[in-house]
Amino acid sequence: MLGRRRRLAILAEGCFTALEAKTAVGVLRYRGDEVAAVIDSTRAGRTADSCVGSGGETPVVANLEEAAARGADSLLIGIAPQGGALPEVWRERVRGSLERGWDVISGLHAFLGDDPELAAAARQGGGRIHDLRRPPEARRVATGRAARVAPLVVLTVGSDCNVGKMTTALEIERELVKRSVHATFVATGQTGIMIADRGVAVDAVPADFVAGAAESLVLEAAGAGADVVLVEGQGALHHPGYSGVTLALMHGVCPRALVLCHHQGRDRIRVSEERDSGPRIPALAELRLAYEAAASWVSPASVVAASLNTLGLDGAAARSACEAAERELGVPATDPVRFGAARLADAIEEGACG
Amino acid sequence: MLGRRRRLAILAEGCFTALEAKTAVGVLRYRGDEVAAVIDSTRAGRTADSCVGSGGETPVVANLEEAAARGADSLLIGIAPQGGALPEVWRERVRGSLERGWDVISGLHAFLGDDPELAAAARQGGGRIHDLRRPPEARRVATGRAARVAPLVVLTVGSDCNVGKMTTALEIERELVKRSVHATFVATGQTGIMIADRGVAVDAVPADFVAGAAESLVLEAAGAGADVVLVEGQGALHHPGYSGVTLALMHGVCPRALVLCHHQGRDRIRVSEERDSGPRIPALAELRLAYEAAASWVSPASVVAASLNTLGLDGAAARSACEAAERELGVPATDPVRFGAARLADAIEEGACG
Repeated sequence: MLGRRRRLAILAEGCFTALEAKTAVGVLRYRGDEVAAVIDSTRAGRTADSCVGSGGETPVVANLEEAAARGADSLLIGIAPQGGALPEVWRERVRGSLERGWDVISGLHAFLGDDPELAAAARQGGGRIHDLRRPPEARRVATGRAARVAPLVVLTVGSDCNVGKMTTALEIERELVKRSVHATFVATGQTGIMIADRGVAVDAVPADFVAGAAESLVLEAAGAGADVVLVEGQGALHHPGYSGVTLALMHGVCPRALVLCHHQGRDRIRVSEERDSGPRIPALAELRLAYEAAASWVSPASVVAASLNTLGLDGAAARSACEAAERELGVPATDPVRFGAARLADAIEEGACG
Repeated sequence: MLGRRRRLAILAEGCFTALEAKTAVGVLRYRGDEVAAVIDSTRAGRTADSCVGSGGETPVVANLEEAAARGADSLLIGIAPQGGALPEVWRERVRGSLERGWDVISGLHAFLGDDPELAAAARQGGGRIHDLRRPPEARRVATGRAARVAPLVVLTVGSDCNVGKMTTALEIERELVKRSVHATFVATGQTGIMIADRGVAVDAVPADFVAGAAESLVLEAAGAGADVVLVEGQGALHHPGYSGVTLALMHGVCPRALVLCHHQGRDRIRVSEERDSGPRIPALAELRLAYEAAASWVSPASVVAASLNTLGLDGAAARSACEAAERELGVPATDPVRFGAARLADAIEEGACG
């Protein structure tokens, strides 16, 4: 990860659950071979799998010392809280890691490298702070030219944040690569960057340049010869806080195909840390209309498949939810983590040839 | 402006035209009594009015010395170029101003205060750099609560950038205040901030927090007792580079009324410095549908009036364009600069009472 193979300690103190530690779960699922331990003293002694359903036997430990005993050499901040500040109770551990000479990898909005105390600890210990959300220097304004690249550009879009847009793009990429298609995942968020070792966290870019940054990522992937470019979506058009990120990403990327992602059973948008307080999530068919309309303002796109996150449902309920989504939308729908991404990949291969 | 009454020298070297020096023109029109001179050596000896149709007899001069002779005590950067960098040929003049002890007021994306040479010149001369686009420290995520404030919230939206969204909001504010309505203009861009002495340049805020910053501005205006809040719009939903800013602003502000702004005769979106290269601008009725649909994703809004910029047309053609827009949209349409904002204010007063 980020230039060398690592032995990561993932910091998820007090919140190592599937809902709260989204970054930790993503890294465990896709870069689990580089994780030495997860730090959460409230769950020490358990395995990652028993806490979040990913990461197998990776141990959960109480502190830096125990993580070091497991061979850890870098600290990764395993959460992405709203507002993006470092929880003050975590500061001690971040400083301790830097003083040991460990690199610290962070996707927070608050840049750790700009914190005088942490920057001093890094200088002293010799470790490096990787602030993955720091925006690129270049200030580019998008012009819509991503609509004219050769590969099929696919964007995952969703009914809310944290419904599976990154996971869906990654699962489709894996499936297409297995089929010998030259498919490339384009990371647009901090967890995606940790997994792909490149990309831009577009939600931290000054607003005028979000679409331009996304456009550059697609042009780069097209220039490297990809036949299918799978772009990780962000936010949701119906989310009052993040809809602008979603639209900027869409108009920068100019996808031809959209994969609509939804967390089955979620009725309301999570506008704040309290659950179920936000506006109602529209029906899938209404979501499709909104996304296709918004795309058409710059470059037309169609929803070619739906990806349901059925975590928490039993197998029969999950299958029936996917079938209902297929009937509602008239396109293939599945849970790629549970049932595999084959049907989603089929829909995209058809789009790439069609 | 910004804490004290000033004698401004507006820097517009080589580009003091209505199209290129948008910031200069806005300041001349609404804060003209604080402008001592405009610096553009290619137009020295002329008046502001003869160059841009605003600013009356304000002299255009060749350099800082001549501006100083007119009593200037501050420099204001009069352009807002794409990308927002300081043109290198302007650096000498900015440094010269700071060395004289003048304050420098800038709305560029590139923060002059972060430039070592200019920061040193400011320290040495004693002047201060005001980077108006520097985002607020607070990182707030919008939740849609602006939809529940008491005043009528109005947002100007448009067919493209630079069509008259700020001017329309300011002209309506003036007209309503003349009628003794407690109306407040909310600035969301650098020129608006220069005119209103407060606000946030939302296009420079990290994307996750644009809607939250806009929401805060509306809550503040409502808290101060306004009956009508007129929010300066940004960008356009059909602009590939800036649509995300537009949507974030809309979903943060949660307007109930929209005023649709268009530059009569412009057919294509200006996606880059070259004219006429961008996508076609849809018909006004189609624009209305797009804006009302986008608003409805978070909170419903209606287009209650249209504002046409008829610069360059003769009086008869301007009147006939406004009549055609009224027929197309079924709401009042006028050019508020040319014909006054009375009809727009009527439409909004109806909305505030209705």
